[in-house]
Amino acid sequence: MTATYLALSGGVGGAKLASGLAAVLRPGQLTIVANVGDDFDHLGLRICPDLDSNMYALAGLNNEELGWGRQGETWQFMAALKDFGGETWFNLGDQDLAVHVERTRRLAAGESLSDVTQALSRALGITHPLQPASDEPIRTIVETEAGDLSFQHYFVRDQCAPAVLGFHFDGIDNANVSPVFAAALSDPSLAAVIICPSNPFVSVDPILRMPGLCDRLRSLDAPVLAVSPIVAGQAIKGPAAKMMAELNVPATSVAVAEYYGDLLDGFIIDVQDTGLVDQFAELPLLVTETIMKNADDRAALARSVIDFSGRLP
Amino acid sequence: MTATYLALSGGVGGAKLASGLAAVLRPGQLTIVANVGDDFDHLGLRICPDLDSNMYALAGLNNEELGWGRQGETWQFMAALKDFGGETWFNLGDQDLAVHVERTRRLAAGESLSDVTQALSRALGITHPLQPASDEPIRTIVETEAGDLSFQHYFVRDQCAPAVLGFHFDGIDNANVSPVFAAALSDPSLAAVIICPSNPFVSVDPILRMPGLCDRLRSLDAPVLAVSPIVAGQAIKGPAAKMMAELNVPATSVAVAEYYGDLLDGFIIDVQDTGLVDQFAELPLLVTETIMKNADDRAALARSVIDFSGRLP
Repeated sequence: MTATYLALSGGVGGAKLASGLAAVLRPGQLTIVANVGDDFDHLGLRICPDLDSNMYALAGLNNEELGWGRQGETWQFMAALKDFGGETWFNLGDQDLAVHVERTRRLAAGESLSDVTQALSRALGITHPLQPASDEPIRTIVETEAGDLSFQHYFVRDQCAPAVLGFHFDGIDNANVSPVFAAALSDPSLAAVIICPSNPFVSVDPILRMPGLCDRLRSLDAPVLAVSPIVAGQAIKGPAAKMMAELNVPATSVAVAEYYGDLLDGFIIDVQDTGLVDQFAELPLLVTETIMKNADDRAALARSVIDFSGRLP
Repeated sequence: MTATYLALSGGVGGAKLASGLAAVLRPGQLTIVANVGDDFDHLGLRICPDLDSNMYALAGLNNEELGWGRQGETWQFMAALKDFGGETWFNLGDQDLAVHVERTRRLAAGESLSDVTQALSRALGITHPLQPASDEPIRTIVETEAGDLSFQHYFVRDQCAPAVLGFHFDGIDNANVSPVFAAALSDPSLAAVIICPSNPFVSVDPILRMPGLCDRLRSLDAPVLAVSPIVAGQAIKGPAAKMMAELNVPATSVAVAEYYGDLLDGFIIDVQDTGLVDQFAELPLLVTETIMKNADDRAALARSVIDFSGRLP
């Protein structure tokens, strides 16, 4: 029986490890589940930033210069929209629009987000299943000193400026894990669940906090491990460290592990955090290079994580 | 009291005269009403080709090389959509998409097509009101030997290949003229109604056949005149001549005038059709250059049509 792996991913950072895993595992060995808490309806289109970041990364179409979106992107649509007085705070590239238009059309025709995502990612030649955490809407709300903000208003429009007080996830109490996610959890060959280096509060929690999911993960024979998104007190990308400071949590990989708590059977930290090793108590640790600048880095970290999972009790 | 004019226009051909009229008349003197029978919902977007052809022509943004769409257009969206296996038979430029997305969003928010069109055209600096014939849906169906086809399937997807048997206009029995169109008809200053050189069957009839409109036009003090879209037995653009042949009507300007019948108080034909003058019976005629290759041609024809309308009884 071939070992299978389940990766839980947020956006760009998580997608790097997901694409590393996709490179070193064979088709049938990997399921990638992406956060849908960032999804929103904008200009009449359903935008799913984390699914798309993973899709573009897995297809090798991600824009390395921008750090988000598609390679070779152009912005003619946005320029024209601006002339019409349309909303321009959320950038939509001309190529990227094709995903949003086609997804919105398919959803309106009654397809599930799982089916749409499968169709779109297969069309780009992605062999490993990339799926949403849920087919039901889950919407991350950032509770801030400026009031509750939908995630994209906080993240893109307001550039993460308002200080964070907490988070909640509209719809999550009625959300079920998507069918392929459920199948991966039930797969007797499941060898590990890998939480990618994504923001614990706004990328991973909107997955983990679905009813019963943490209990399900704890009850698995397979270990659950996470790669720290915090290295040397900084988030590689995004507002995780800023959020931790505002929540009065130290911005450290130690605090990330404590946040995940007894869900974790193992944790992967960067070599830059070697000095923190003593602070992790009994949690099995892998200390390795976690900063992924190219395909070799992504594959190397993926191999290390897989190897580590096999050594856990 | 300043004379006012009402222009009824189809797509590109009609838009040429409409933009000529816009160039020679002052704001407040001209209302342009465009056909909505070509409108359709595609990829979840409301596409209004004739409104957009007029809008781009009036804003000076029309693509003279292509003969349709916007200047400096790019096609990144379509290329990406093709990769996703989306429907690509109807070309949507990256800039052009902004109109469709913003219009669809505004319609979904409850604005009328009139209000949306006004907002979009004003944003492009268009001073004369450009309005849809109706805020209610009217959809041209082309009856062909291959069965009934929606207009864009006939025109774009099937490239006008199926032989035409007739036409009908879904929704027209419940369609009212749009508010600005109604106001123009009731304006005591109205000096002429000008039917632009557009296809009588699929561009003008979906306007004229709204309940009671022809009677209303006949009862006006102002004359109704039309510019022939057929010159020397050919349509300047589009399938009008092919349709006439398939309907066993001679493809001549004479047949166009006969088709409009007693609605017309005057008719404008091209100098190339001078030899046909005797065939128009009592209908007052203006014979002039009607082929518009540039802004000067458009303004010259507009002036000639306005002058002619002032000489009619």
